[in-house]
Amino acid sequence: MITLPPDPRVDAAIDASLDRIVTRARTLGPGFGALGDAVARASRGGKRFRPALVAASFGAFGGDPDATPSVYPVAAAFELLHAAFVVHDDVIDHDTERRGIPNVAGEFREHARVQGADAAGAVVLGDAAAILAGDLLLHEAFRLVSFAEVDPVAREQLQALLDDAVYVSAAGELADVTNAVVPEHASHDDILDAAFNKTAVYSFQAPLQAGAVLAGAGDEARGVLSAAGGSLGLAFQLVDDLIGAFGSAEQAGRESGGDLRESKRTPLVALARESSSWPKVNEALAVAHTGPIAVREAQVALLESGAPVRLRGLISDTLDQVRTASRDSALPAAVGSLLRDLADGVEGRIP
Amino acid sequence: MITLPPDPRVDAAIDASLDRIVTRARTLGPGFGALGDAVARASRGGKRFRPALVAASFGAFGGDPDATPSVYPVAAAFELLHAAFVVHDDVIDHDTERRGIPNVAGEFREHARVQGADAAGAVVLGDAAAILAGDLLLHEAFRLVSFAEVDPVAREQLQALLDDAVYVSAAGELADVTNAVVPEHASHDDILDAAFNKTAVYSFQAPLQAGAVLAGAGDEARGVLSAAGGSLGLAFQLVDDLIGAFGSAEQAGRESGGDLRESKRTPLVALARESSSWPKVNEALAVAHTGPIAVREAQVALLESGAPVRLRGLISDTLDQVRTASRDSALPAAVGSLLRDLADGVEGRIP
Repeated sequence: MITLPPDPRVDAAIDASLDRIVTRARTLGPGFGALGDAVARASRGGKRFRPALVAASFGAFGGDPDATPSVYPVAAAFELLHAAFVVHDDVIDHDTERRGIPNVAGEFREHARVQGADAAGAVVLGDAAAILAGDLLLHEAFRLVSFAEVDPVAREQLQALLDDAVYVSAAGELADVTNAVVPEHASHDDILDAAFNKTAVYSFQAPLQAGAVLAGAGDEARGVLSAAGGSLGLAFQLVDDLIGAFGSAEQAGRESGGDLRESKRTPLVALARESSSWPKVNEALAVAHTGPIAVREAQVALLESGAPVRLRGLISDTLDQVRTASRDSALPAAVGSLLRDLADGVEGRIP
Repeated sequence: MITLPPDPRVDAAIDASLDRIVTRARTLGPGFGALGDAVARASRGGKRFRPALVAASFGAFGGDPDATPSVYPVAAAFELLHAAFVVHDDVIDHDTERRGIPNVAGEFREHARVQGADAAGAVVLGDAAAILAGDLLLHEAFRLVSFAEVDPVAREQLQALLDDAVYVSAAGELADVTNAVVPEHASHDDILDAAFNKTAVYSFQAPLQAGAVLAGAGDEARGVLSAAGGSLGLAFQLVDDLIGAFGSAEQAGRESGGDLRESKRTPLVALARESSSWPKVNEALAVAHTGPIAVREAQVALLESGAPVRLRGLISDTLDQVRTASRDSALPAAVGSLLRDLADGVEGRIP
């Protein structure tokens, strides 16, 4: 992710919330206590970009954390929401590891095996644990926003942002899964929409806006920020697609070309489909799961289709929109500067 | 379930909330609109017992719905919470039907197949849709409680009840799945705890208490009500176990002896395990999935173990506690009368 200045008070708010989950779960017996511990572990490894974005936006709009300490629990809510999505996403994808260590499902499969369950039983318990873990995280995210000590109008605005984040991300996730399992289903626009919905709102637009609401920003500034946040999120996701296809193993956090191995229907692939060399790309993608040489051939076929160049152009146009918005007179100078830093950060990740 | 007087304003509040989900989902495209429709359908077939219980408790405590119209959206929240649990429970159990018609997962598997997905892809899309549907329902339940127009103290009490309902039910569900997949894992007490946690709090204790909070009941009355609600919920669940093993197909809403076919670790089976004839019961249960004759033999073996008689005794003791509490001087007469009616209703379901 993009690096923002760390704020120990953001970490403290997240940790306080995770401590509540752990303590609450332990009162309900050792089995459920283990789930609380797993939830906390699942929420601890990340870069905490979304809460940092809430705090950075709040600060750039001139918010004073001593006057509005609720900025920290609200920031924490976005981390817990992210963790909820990740945990449920892993169930959908049948993943049992994240960052090389067992995730909630993986851990509970192992618990079940140790206690003598058969393989099918272990899968059932792993999935159950992960579904329930995501439910608890979603519930806690909502609690943090509901209990924010801000005036009722601001609280309703924050709840509306959370509502947007939940609905739009769910729509993006459903579209993403549909595009993956239904061959030839989606148009180029559908795939771009899914990419936007899955990440842009909950990772960029809503956290930026939450900071603005907490700092008391006016409607005009929030409107400009909302559009810029959406564009940033889209550009981020498109860069992620380039990384998934062409990034180094270090940058992708997994084997290089992972998206190609998994035949993901990304905007990059949608662009390739519009080129005259699509049959060749399609053939190369069909065998990309077989090994590193086949991945390399799929990368070459994609490059020859011109899709990466077109995608870079789309990213560049989207970031231009962010930079133009950043100079809008409705925004304080510090907010414009934050948006430009974020655009630079997204651009800097292009592989 | 037990029948309570119908209240069209409860139905109107549930329908308004489902309409919001449908409308909100449709703005995010036809695919997600279909999910909104499926969520609404999943929430429409039930008997709406929990919201009726909120309204009945509120009325018995002398609450005036014209002064506190929030009783209806809060009541609706308990129906949506129930629907969220049912939808996620179905994913965990790999069920694709409910009441004989496709559930959310079943419907989206069919969508996927019609659009050309293979069998594995259809399962992935079905599970994804059902996980997301449960997330939306949980989110809406929380919204309904958060937006209740009541004083801040009452709102915090309602949010605490919802928090209990979410945590305790999740603990019950996890324990239930663990007991099902891990052989010889659970003690008799563990299995009783799981039965209590899975249903008693969110179906009885919390709805009764929510009605009391909304009607402005005092702490002492709420304390008595809480204990009685827990006992009612436990008795209800134990009767459900008898129905699952011995009830008619009509009463169980599925083939008779369904719990025996599925080798469920219910409190009934836990009691049988303590009898000297357990080896015979165990043998009969092991083949109960093979057909109606084997189910009948398992029923006979269970009867001979004495477990059903002991379970009936436990149910009777638990309902006695409810009836004793119903005469506590801290409770208004109408609340006592409601509790006795509920106890009679639970007793009347014993097969």
